[in-house]
Amino acid sequence: MNTIETIKDGKNYTAVTVGKLNEIKDYVLPLGEIEIPGKVFAGQALHATGSELSFQTLVPGQDSGFLHTHKTHEELYFILKGEGEYQVDGDIFPISEGSIIRVAPEGKRALKNTGKGELLMLCIQYKANSFVESDSPVSDGNILNEPLKW
Amino acid sequence: MNTIETIKDGKNYTAVTVGKLNEIKDYVLPLGEIEIPGKVFAGQALHATGSELSFQTLVPGQDSGFLHTHKTHEELYFILKGEGEYQVDGDIFPISEGSIIRVAPEGKRALKNTGKGELLMLCIQYKANSFVESDSPVSDGNILNEPLKW
Repeated sequence: MNTIETIKDGKNYTAVTVGKLNEIKDYVLPLGEIEIPGKVFAGQALHATGSELSFQTLVPGQDSGFLHTHKTHEELYFILKGEGEYQVDGDIFPISEGSIIRVAPEGKRALKNTGKGELLMLCIQYKANSFVESDSPVSDGNILNEPLKW
Repeated sequence: MNTIETIKDGKNYTAVTVGKLNEIKDYVLPLGEIEIPGKVFAGQALHATGSELSFQTLVPGQDSGFLHTHKTHEELYFILKGEGEYQVDGDIFPISEGSIIRVAPEGKRALKNTGKGELLMLCIQYKANSFVESDSPVSDGNILNEPLKW
């Protein structure tokens, strides 16, 4: 069973590792009286202050097991490996490596591995509608005029 | 040159594809009068309402080119492939496939590919400190008691 390891923790950052992506399948998530294989949450280890995130591996034929919605969080699903189907509110569409799905809080969502190998996804949630028009990556970022040393 | 394609757009979701992850290097980001190879932003295509995100490939020896901070956004960096070094406020530490780095808005950050192959990262930004104690993935999510059909 894998566990998240902290690389380094500083005043303004936390760095962790979940290990090689093809070993995510070896994680086991305890959830009350059951265990979910192939899934790991990382938000707490990272001390994230506005997101939660998880990696999950689905074996061929496996799906999410249930539909779910959210109260106030938008989710992004990144398909990092494999092939499958995604559904929101009954709409079903194919997804594969490089697909990204954004789901609003009220969307009824689930995912299925329809391929022959493992499906690996990264899911991130954060407050929906928390950006305003001025929140472009350009306007929020400050490029510093000081030397970059290694 | 690659472009993001929309898979499907619905009331509560948007699905896009950036293509195979080993072809992110073929994207070119226009930025004023210059072009940044190997980088693509996807927040706008996804109609994301509380995040911006980008994939970026760095070739061996290449770094971010500059230090940067943010005004109000926390960032997460996911290393999906390769080996490198990350720095925040002058602290330098090694990162590789499976590393995740959270940086607070005021952290002065940069990344370098110190490996022999390409370094692929996914960067996501969202409002720092937008979660409160009750915003656990468990408390925000609703598992639906209705059949999951494919």
